[in-house]
Amino acid sequence: MKRQFIREILDVITADTISFAGGLPDADLFPLDAFKTAADRVLSEPASLQYSRSQGYAPLREKIAERYCAAGFETRAEEILITTGSQQAINLIALSMLPYGVTVELPAYLGALSAFRLAKVKTEGVALEHDGIAMTPLRRSIARTGAAYLIPDFQNPTGLRYSAAKRQAVAKAVLDADALLIEDAPYSELYFDHASLPISATMPERSFHLGSFSKILAPGLRVGWVRASEANLRRLLVVKEAIDLHTSTLDQRLIDAFWETEGLDRHLSSLRIHYRAKKNALSNALRTQLPDFVFDEPRGGMFLYGRLPGFDTKTLVNRCLERGVAFVPGSEFYPGTPALDELRLNFTHTDPAQMHRGVGLMADAYREQIVSKITGVARATA
Amino acid sequence: MKRQFIREILDVITADTISFAGGLPDADLFPLDAFKTAADRVLSEPASLQYSRSQGYAPLREKIAERYCAAGFETRAEEILITTGSQQAINLIALSMLPYGVTVELPAYLGALSAFRLAKVKTEGVALEHDGIAMTPLRRSIARTGAAYLIPDFQNPTGLRYSAAKRQAVAKAVLDADALLIEDAPYSELYFDHASLPISATMPERSFHLGSFSKILAPGLRVGWVRASEANLRRLLVVKEAIDLHTSTLDQRLIDAFWETEGLDRHLSSLRIHYRAKKNALSNALRTQLPDFVFDEPRGGMFLYGRLPGFDTKTLVNRCLERGVAFVPGSEFYPGTPALDELRLNFTHTDPAQMHRGVGLMADAYREQIVSKITGVARATA
Repeated sequence: MKRQFIREILDVITADTISFAGGLPDADLFPLDAFKTAADRVLSEPASLQYSRSQGYAPLREKIAERYCAAGFETRAEEILITTGSQQAINLIALSMLPYGVTVELPAYLGALSAFRLAKVKTEGVALEHDGIAMTPLRRSIARTGAAYLIPDFQNPTGLRYSAAKRQAVAKAVLDADALLIEDAPYSELYFDHASLPISATMPERSFHLGSFSKILAPGLRVGWVRASEANLRRLLVVKEAIDLHTSTLDQRLIDAFWETEGLDRHLSSLRIHYRAKKNALSNALRTQLPDFVFDEPRGGMFLYGRLPGFDTKTLVNRCLERGVAFVPGSEFYPGTPALDELRLNFTHTDPAQMHRGVGLMADAYREQIVSKITGVARATA
Repeated sequence: MKRQFIREILDVITADTISFAGGLPDADLFPLDAFKTAADRVLSEPASLQYSRSQGYAPLREKIAERYCAAGFETRAEEILITTGSQQAINLIALSMLPYGVTVELPAYLGALSAFRLAKVKTEGVALEHDGIAMTPLRRSIARTGAAYLIPDFQNPTGLRYSAAKRQAVAKAVLDADALLIEDAPYSELYFDHASLPISATMPERSFHLGSFSKILAPGLRVGWVRASEANLRRLLVVKEAIDLHTSTLDQRLIDAFWETEGLDRHLSSLRIHYRAKKNALSNALRTQLPDFVFDEPRGGMFLYGRLPGFDTKTLVNRCLERGVAFVPGSEFYPGTPALDELRLNFTHTDPAQMHRGVGLMADAYREQIVSKITGVARATA
């Protein structure tokens, strides 16, 4: 297995690099003091450091189930499995539920591709359009694979949200094909305008809805969850036991204690406001300093994705890293034939002043490369 | 995949059950106050809640490497990979290093069997003798599998420690066969008399030495590690990235902060003294109340293993659970033909008074069953 290029980029990034590369939340928004209070409370109980049940901490599962119910998706705590990050949830599903393969979006989430590869699950890619996945190829593909892995809210890498019409069409297609839906939803709560009901709500028995505290609270804790039918959950549970017994008891209880005393909503509101402002800052920096870059305005999430038409963005990476700015070229998100002129920028990690500088450095590298290309062509034809 | 019976037993255990079943450390010995101090310190840094590198937190890897060096096993931080518990380490190795299979001890550690099964790694069992694994069948088996998975210190389930002579013989056999050694060492620090040098130290390039903070500090944190050559470590690293990106940043930093301020040795000394006293209490309760039970006195670790000669211990489980006492029948630890009259008792979780009561309840159930068997036979032959 090859190492992920994105992990390699992350490994060479220093404290001085302006990084649009990873999917890092803004560390300034971590509720450190509330976590200290939670730790003090939770660490008064020895059970917080002890082994615990594979399905996860019951009070936390109950809170997650209630939140689904409040959003209009009927759910019981028995239908929640706590996972060691969403990444593990994808693994558990890959290892137990996908005998014929899985249909993925193109461009695709890298972590999911790795998980499917590791479990030797065949993937078929279907292109994303501006309002979500392309329906005709989706229907054809899931007839073969029997499953679709989708990120309908603020997809990674594209930042795209599926339209209401496309959500309905996807639901119908999956039901018609008697297929499974794996709906990965780590960014769903990070909307800038309005929430959307999970597509899974229309097919609770044949869907896996994946949530995570990584993007909304603290990624370092590695706590996520799957919402699935009890029968499907049991299949994931036996695999989870073989993989890591259970998710960190302490991390689960810390999140539960935070949720118990602080609630999630105030913190989420604050994240939405901050991330929206950051998205606007990046968007403005791009429009003014790198006008060749073509992109859709994200409505939430953590990523802004676009194209430098006709330009191979992979050749830009090292030149940018030398200047102290990092991003991920779009080619990384395609398992097959890549779209070479695309690139992904994260807008949650850097602050607006850095963004401005970072985009400036990218623009310099871009111009320099275009000039050297023209000069090269001129030389070659001289 | 079947659920582990042991996890099912753990799920039905209530707060009132006297449990010899799990491998739970004594929660009364968790250093809660020191962890509170560590949490207060660690949670002052936003990086403690952020994503982090897949190989693990560098200061913690350095401390682990230094501890190996101090024990006479030269190791650098680059040769340490932090894992989400030892269970994950076994998984990573199973998924990347064992194309021909692996030789395991009989009786075997259940978690390892699950990991090998999940990765479709063929296992061959070789019986344990009183001083360690049987050498002739080990040699034959690793010639086929190319790898041995062993727990030389206070093995789970048998509590057995390999003799010095057997350690040398195993090292020679693995080297002669050009095989790999996977040395799982979660209990090595829990000796009642003296430490032993890892067998891996004689073959640093072809061994994986697995350590864990679960038994020596806090299992709920799910932090373990592998010590391997850099080349082998890289192969595990790519799999780890696909499995859970990295181990909980917070949990790693908490352990590092605890280690930094408290050290490990004082805590370990205290564990050794307490666990030795508990082992003695269980041993005495068994000798006095259940004299039919035949066992070797453990020299460390967490388990006491033995036989009720000629008696099927699996039939005793439910009768004991009804009475409020739990253990694991030996048959669970055999993937093939089980030794029916064996059983495993954990001695770290319960206190001496409970132990006395628990063994009494087991003895009652045992006697009752023998009587009903005799009565049954008498009736059948009447």
